[in-house]
Amino acid sequence: MATITQRPRARDLGIRIGPLTPGEHNAITDVAGVRVGHVTLNSGEGPLRIGHGPVRTGVTAIVPPGDDWYAEPVEAGQFVFNGAGTTVGLSLIDEFGRIETPVMLTNTLSVGTVYEGVVRYMVERIFAPRGSVPWFSPVVGETSDAYLNDIGGLHVRAEHAMEAIRVAAAGPVEEGCVGGGMGMGAFGFKGGIGTSSRMVELGGESSVVGALVQSNFGGRLTIDGVPFHDLQAPARQDALGASIMMIVATDLPLSNRLLARVAKRATLGMARTGSTGGHGSGDYVIAFSTTYRSPAAKRAARQALADNEGTLDVVFQAAADATEEAILNSMFRAETVIGRDGNMRAALPLDVVEERLRRAGRL
Amino acid sequence: MATITQRPRARDLGIRIGPLTPGEHNAITDVAGVRVGHVTLNSGEGPLRIGHGPVRTGVTAIVPPGDDWYAEPVEAGQFVFNGAGTTVGLSLIDEFGRIETPVMLTNTLSVGTVYEGVVRYMVERIFAPRGSVPWFSPVVGETSDAYLNDIGGLHVRAEHAMEAIRVAAAGPVEEGCVGGGMGMGAFGFKGGIGTSSRMVELGGESSVVGALVQSNFGGRLTIDGVPFHDLQAPARQDALGASIMMIVATDLPLSNRLLARVAKRATLGMARTGSTGGHGSGDYVIAFSTTYRSPAAKRAARQALADNEGTLDVVFQAAADATEEAILNSMFRAETVIGRDGNMRAALPLDVVEERLRRAGRL
Amino acid sequence: MATITQRPRARDLGIRIGPLTPGEHNAITDVAGVRVGHVTLNSGEGPLRIGHGPVRTGVTAIVPPGDDWYAEPVEAGQFVFNGAGTTVGLSLIDEFGRIETPVMLTNTLSVGTVYEGVVRYMVERIFAPRGSVPWFSPVVGETSDAYLNDIGGLHVRAEHAMEAIRVAAAGPVEEGCVGGGMGMGAFGFKGGIGTSSRMVELGGESSVVGALVQSNFGGRLTIDGVPFHDLQAPARQDALGASIMMIVATDLPLSNRLLARVAKRATLGMARTGSTGGHGSGDYVIAFSTTYRSPAAKRAARQALADNEGTLDVVFQAAADATEEAILNSMFRAETVIGRDGNMRAALPLDVVEERLRRAGRL
Amino acid sequence: MATITQRPRARDLGIRIGPLTPGEHNAITDVAGVRVGHVTLNSGEGPLRIGHGPVRTGVTAIVPPGDDWYAEPVEAGQFVFNGAGTTVGLSLIDEFGRIETPVMLTNTLSVGTVYEGVVRYMVERIFAPRGSVPWFSPVVGETSDAYLNDIGGLHVRAEHAMEAIRVAAAGPVEEGCVGGGMGMGAFGFKGGIGTSSRMVELGGESSVVGALVQSNFGGRLTIDGVPFHDLQAPARQDALGASIMMIVATDLPLSNRLLARVAKRATLGMARTGSTGGHGSGDYVIAFSTTYRSPAAKRAARQALADNEGTLDVVFQAAADATEEAILNSMFRAETVIGRDGNMRAALPLDVVEERLRRAGRL
Repeated sequence: MATITQRPRARDLGIRIGPLTPGEHNAITDVAGVRVGHVTLNSGEGPLRIGHGPVRTGVTAIVPPGDDWYAEPVEAGQFVFNGAGTTVGLSLIDEFGRIETPVMLTNTLSVGTVYEGVVRYMVERIFAPRGSVPWFSPVVGETSDAYLNDIGGLHVRAEHAMEAIRVAAAGPVEEGCVGGGMGMGAFGFKGGIGTSSRMVELGGESSVVGALVQSNFGGRLTIDGVPFHDLQAPARQDALGASIMMIVATDLPLSNRLLARVAKRATLGMARTGSTGGHGSGDYVIAFSTTYRSPAAKRAARQALADNEGTLDVVFQAAADATEEAILNSMFRAETVIGRDGNMRAALPLDVVEERLRRAGRL
Repeated sequence: MATITQRPRARDLGIRIGPLTPGEHNAITDVAGVRVGHVTLNSGEGPLRIGHGPVRTGVTAIVPPGDDWYAEPVEAGQFVFNGAGTTVGLSLIDEFGRIETPVMLTNTLSVGTVYEGVVRYMVERIFAPRGSVPWFSPVVGETSDAYLNDIGGLHVRAEHAMEAIRVAAAGPVEEGCVGGGMGMGAFGFKGGIGTSSRMVELGGESSVVGALVQSNFGGRLTIDGVPFHDLQAPARQDALGASIMMIVATDLPLSNRLLARVAKRATLGMARTGSTGGHGSGDYVIAFSTTYRSPAAKRAARQALADNEGTLDVVFQAAADATEEAILNSMFRAETVIGRDGNMRAALPLDVVEERLRRAGRL
Repeated sequence: MATITQRPRARDLGIRIGPLTPGEHNAITDVAGVRVGHVTLNSGEGPLRIGHGPVRTGVTAIVPPGDDWYAEPVEAGQFVFNGAGTTVGLSLIDEFGRIETPVMLTNTLSVGTVYEGVVRYMVERIFAPRGSVPWFSPVVGETSDAYLNDIGGLHVRAEHAMEAIRVAAAGPVEEGCVGGGMGMGAFGFKGGIGTSSRMVELGGESSVVGALVQSNFGGRLTIDGVPFHDLQAPARQDALGASIMMIVATDLPLSNRLLARVAKRATLGMARTGSTGGHGSGDYVIAFSTTYRSPAAKRAARQALADNEGTLDVVFQAAADATEEAILNSMFRAETVIGRDGNMRAALPLDVVEERLRRAGRL
Repeated sequence: MATITQRPRARDLGIRIGPLTPGEHNAITDVAGVRVGHVTLNSGEGPLRIGHGPVRTGVTAIVPPGDDWYAEPVEAGQFVFNGAGTTVGLSLIDEFGRIETPVMLTNTLSVGTVYEGVVRYMVERIFAPRGSVPWFSPVVGETSDAYLNDIGGLHVRAEHAMEAIRVAAAGPVEEGCVGGGMGMGAFGFKGGIGTSSRMVELGGESSVVGALVQSNFGGRLTIDGVPFHDLQAPARQDALGASIMMIVATDLPLSNRLLARVAKRATLGMARTGSTGGHGSGDYVIAFSTTYRSPAAKRAARQALADNEGTLDVVFQAAADATEEAILNSMFRAETVIGRDGNMRAALPLDVVEERLRRAGRL
């Protein structure tokens, strides 16, 4: 585990993205039953020796409610803004509208071992006790940490993925240089894991939309509308990998079609941080609903949506804003990391950020 | 034709969107051979009498090079951010990677008559002289002007579409309350037609990316990162229609696949103006290349793209930035319009814009 | 109206496609509330004089239940096997999962006038009485009758589309050389409109899946597995247009996602008639459910699908089989037509068909 | 390796699917440079003991030309008929139009270990010698062998995938119970790996289209139009897994867009064998071109396609026919297999097939 840093989150600095209020932890775990677990691998330094290190990587599990995700899948939708990556599990989301495993985030080349870990976890815990194993479809997303990490060393093993699922917990979520985000960078600075949430009201009921990102992308950094691209390291350092995974969860009863619509809006938040959707940046959004498949849940919101799908507008706003703030948090909370070959991703200089936002009248 | 106003374009005020330089006219017509024509219908006032007016509508033609678009189609790609509309011609763009007619913009319910106009124009000019008529696929986009216009009156006739093609010209493009944009509104203000362009260099050759929009959408207005949503009229006035058509043209030799990628990046510019992708907002992007199907053209850029598709990054930047500036221009150039039932779309108050941008250090 | 022919339908000859039983009329109108109307234009002969004829065309309306399709839309899904055409209304089906107008079939270049007809019909009947007109999204499909018809003459006018909606009726459906199918050909023979249906049981309830096609495509004709391509006219005659529109309706409570899945299976029936998905053949499927948006309807089937989506398998079978039989009916019922310039589409020689099927043991 | 059986291929029996002629080996390896390798795991019998066996599984590698697939990727396109599975690598095919690794086929739950095997193979052979490892995107397809195999035991390891790539060879391809097809069944009979090819002429040049399938799907078995569904085992036995992977390779210079079009036509061949696209049947097609990215190759075909994309029609026919015959071969060559818990997939009884086809006049 990375040390828990004292660096503030965006909101601690006074930044307010959009008009809506965050949930209790301002995290994806504000959606009841959703848990997050990280396993962080951080060891070695000096020159890259493929297979030996240095190691700056990990795996993050976003775990839907319950413990038999196959028997009780969550409804899901997805959107690929830029398919320059190798995320697994998207075709089942489109076809069956569901996710039947935890959603895992790791580095690009470790998708296979993490997939194996999900399979082994579910075979051992869910299927072996019953004596029969069906096919199922793990969801594993990735971005590349090749700039800091010995990515070819495949240091994330199946056991790490199983451990990330096992340790997943509700409540506050560690951000920055943790889990799948350990070796990631954004806009030339250190990126990684970030999360945020928004409360919305539909049909008189209060619901929540949460986002969690693994940020590793580029563009021209913009914070709450204020430009910071002059501070960015030269773009060449991003060349080996630059992507973002965006996970949106909600307790609103949204179908596959509506979740795919919500997923698209996450990219609006991504855009507002300055992304230009770089060629090699695999930008994926996966959205899921914890209540859609329980017809008795959230009846008022269900009715409101059936009566007027336009009530989704506040949900779209929530998804865009929570994603934007999650990206900021992934950078605000991340500390400077030096990886293989001395490659460095510096922490975003928050004093400069604060001063410039203040000068622009944004704080 | 609407009166040419003296209101400035965004760049006249000193606004600079992104790092790239516009082309000669800062318009989609900077792409050699591309022409734009408007027919504007603006008559009557007072209460709505369906079929009689008031009329606040029109049609805009974006005409690819040459005059036999069927024999010499342009390569094309598209992206639907929100399919809440009725744009025609998208499936052929996906399947054949081409556009074989002018690209038309009008109001939602006039798609049919404009389609008929394109057919009649091409039958008369191209096919009848040869004595045989094949099937072909007109491209007609739309947004709804129901808030200001007698949209049910179908005042745009086939003849108007034919006239818009006929008058299409190179050079500066009229913006604001013209053509298909006559009755449109954006962010509660008057919107309509806007355009912009960016020069890019690939393979040592200078090329251009141009955007033209018909803006009719909403969200929380943001100009160059500075918020203006407090000035917006209450959202309810947008309820009857809120969408955006974005057309991107380039003389870069981009295939269908690359144009679809470019089209996606136009939505990044849309996002930065404050769109939250409203439920009822049909947000479509159509992109075309004037050179891809001429193998002898733009050889150096062609080679640069084949060697490293990542050279597209500057094109993505150009598409996002030109679209953002085109949206601003559509509002900057538009004057206040009062339509049916006294419904009003006020011109964006540019004095407030200027002062606030200056205070935020953006001018 | 074309003369009602005495030619038999496929089933009259003893052909049985698949294991399921057709509904009462073996037609899309077996789905309660669904009506079909044709307007057939058939006049003139001799050489093509563009704008004058000969005229071999028309328009067909498939009308969902009720008479305010905007206030009470049907749930819908779609699949484009080959986008070589210009069908309108698909993006709204994907985005909103609904159809809010009749579904119209006509020739390719008349999409615009038919679109206008739908708009005028709905403005006059639905919106004008209320004094306000929203935007809405007509669904108009097409195939090309350029081989027989003066397609460039745009003989189908808005009034014809309005009339097709007006005359739409439940019960038996006229097939062959009627409506949009008047000038169409399939596999070198005369094609046009055909329909069929299948009864299915889900959750103990009996439901129906109906298909209607406008056949104008090619390949190597196969009837119930038996090859007939040796009888086909040389392929060149198909060059000017070759496509198929497939409409599937059901009273099963299927969501947009499930309807899109059902739509894909219609192409399996198309494949079994010998299609090879020709380059220029625009092959589109549109599927809709008349009950999905009425939560109180079809509760048992709804529960069966929620419990196990695999119960769809019989629906997939029904969609494939009904589409295959609808295609056969479109050819079985069509009579020989001579069109412009003496171009001829001969009726499928049913005596040869019967004898060969008998020899192959299929009758 | 499974024993090479003496069972005939479809063509050995006199079956002729479509009008085109196969290549030398009637196999995907007729495409110059394409190699196929199998590793087959077949051990144990008796009751299922999860983690111990019985083992009836394996992995198949379809290896594009050359040995640095990252530096010299093949152009690719794909089509998902039914996304009920977990195939990896599709989004990069859509986005970059390329495949940069071998294409692997295995069982559903072993996708992760096979992914790891591809990564390790390429890191060791390609990247480690250069001292730096980029991200890349393995392509791994799957179908479920849970009916015969201890699928939860994850018996396919990374080493097996590496070995399948290593042993891949040109020339005749082993079919039936080999590689990824070891434990697969089709239409209630034993299925597995099958392949076929067709010669086509474009621009005066002879080219080849090859297909390879891993068949594990169901429906109503039809061989060359003749029904055999009365012979099928009851459908329930298929419930645990039923899918098909279809790989199409060609030396024609086809772009991503055209390859996606070709991929769709493979499903026409699938349809003609009797598939009804079962709910749980993950039906995926991946198509690649070995020459598109070498502008000097196949100039005449390139020109023919540029002049008239309709010349693709023969390629569509070839893809559909080769896929249909590959499916037949996967069953014709497969021998009876008894797997876990005594579950059996009987070999297709070829004597019955021959006699019935003869009676129907098809031989």
